[in-house]
Amino acid sequence: MVSKPFVHDAANSGEEREMPIFALENPVFLTYLIASAIMVLKVMGQGWMTVYRMMKINGGYASPEDLKTGLINKSPSPSQLEVNEYVDRSRRMHRNDLENVPAFWIAGLLFVLVDPAVWLAQILMYGFVLARLAHFWAYATKRTHEVRATFYTLGSIIVIYLAGHALWVATM
Amino acid sequence: MVSKPFVHDAANSGEEREMPIFALENPVFLTYLIASAIMVLKVMGQGWMTVYRMMKINGGYASPEDLKTGLINKSPSPSQLEVNEYVDRSRRMHRNDLENVPAFWIAGLLFVLVDPAVWLAQILMYGFVLARLAHFWAYATKRTHEVRATFYTLGSIIVIYLAGHALWVATM
Amino acid sequence: MVSKPFVHDAANSGEEREMPIFALENPVFLTYLIASAIMVLKVMGQGWMTVYRMMKINGGYASPEDLKTGLINKSPSPSQLEVNEYVDRSRRMHRNDLENVPAFWIAGLLFVLVDPAVWLAQILMYGFVLARLAHFWAYATKRTHEVRATFYTLGSIIVIYLAGHALWVATM
Repeated sequence: MVSKPFVHDAANSGEEREMPIFALENPVFLTYLIASAIMVLKVMGQGWMTVYRMMKINGGYASPEDLKTGLINKSPSPSQLEVNEYVDRSRRMHRNDLENVPAFWIAGLLFVLVDPAVWLAQILMYGFVLARLAHFWAYATKRTHEVRATFYTLGSIIVIYLAGHALWVATM
Repeated sequence: MVSKPFVHDAANSGEEREMPIFALENPVFLTYLIASAIMVLKVMGQGWMTVYRMMKINGGYASPEDLKTGLINKSPSPSQLEVNEYVDRSRRMHRNDLENVPAFWIAGLLFVLVDPAVWLAQILMYGFVLARLAHFWAYATKRTHEVRATFYTLGSIIVIYLAGHALWVATM
Repeated sequence: MVSKPFVHDAANSGEEREMPIFALENPVFLTYLIASAIMVLKVMGQGWMTVYRMMKINGGYASPEDLKTGLINKSPSPSQLEVNEYVDRSRRMHRNDLENVPAFWIAGLLFVLVDPAVWLAQILMYGFVLARLAHFWAYATKRTHEVRATFYTLGSIIVIYLAGHALWVATM
């Protein structure tokens, strides 16, 4: 068990010195920050995709009070509360995000804190982002279950690896 | 790209010194800690609101085994497994929290790590807390879709800004 | 309000020195890392339990396109899109995880940052892991509502305590 509060930084300076983990000059942390921030935008964007779809078809609402007449809903009808596949697809995509992305945020943070190799962090974290964007594409465009499952699997394995790697370094 | 592992602290001392990001004396981090902890209590409280509502109406249960006679359910009936609007409202509120709050937790952390202005952090983070508490009020008291959507929008834009700001500082 | 960017470490050395919070030699952080990483594996594993159950009964699918013939689904039928209790149980377990575990991840991190006693961190964090594993067991094996609720309550109280403790230390 080796303490890794600081990372070794010999790249910019000729001499050796130590750098805090959370410095932007630490390329592992920078990778984590970029990947995590993109995934925040992805998850929040999914909420807005649901809003867009509800507005577009004027339905797929979830609460009885959404049938009150107002700016959002100018001519209410009980059928607007029925499950609508177009809107529900976006909600399912959102749920799938929630099942995978928060775990990535924390597993990625733990991974950064055990000071991994830069190339490994980049492959895994940008790989996760790409896998999830591909999953979004596959789900939104109704690709086959096999295509969607492939991207889900890739993202899931990366998160499991990040957590397993951190656990291994911390306990071995 | 500037490293920000420590923040500049000239407030308390006459001389300049650096302070770690995660010190409670860093007002940006303190703001994040307070806002995040309040949101933890909010999200966990939502679970207890669902429990309270299930107990109160003795229904809205989700699993077949909840129909076994016991301390919680003294006179079971199959109708207790039907979706109950009073209970389901609390579940929808919980889902809405899960779609917004974990993203705030991580976007806020990334924001802290790029060392923003204190006033900006306070406006955004306490603004998020207020927007979500107002969303809770609007949802629980069945305000119109417009009112609920306004508070949702405010919270969502803040999270998107936090992540976008961190991404900008890290990459520009 | 006391700054705790570093923890006091007199255990290994005869002399006093300070150690960063996020060092693996800080037993509070090590406890957090281990507990959080185990919970990442638990949450991701729940996704795979859902996949396993869908494959086993060849049903409980969520999207219309899952009825296309392919490697996963060799003889499609509309009934495969109906809610299936065996699969839905795993989805409910997953939802329950999402309502509790991300809040633990962040509350635990805030707790670490206010530098608590090691024994307290170990009891609370390993206690949370055990409570959630017991909740998994109770839900998967259809124990009574009382048994499941007991483990839910234990996990929930721990998360609330972690956030409340951090909030107290930060503001008092």
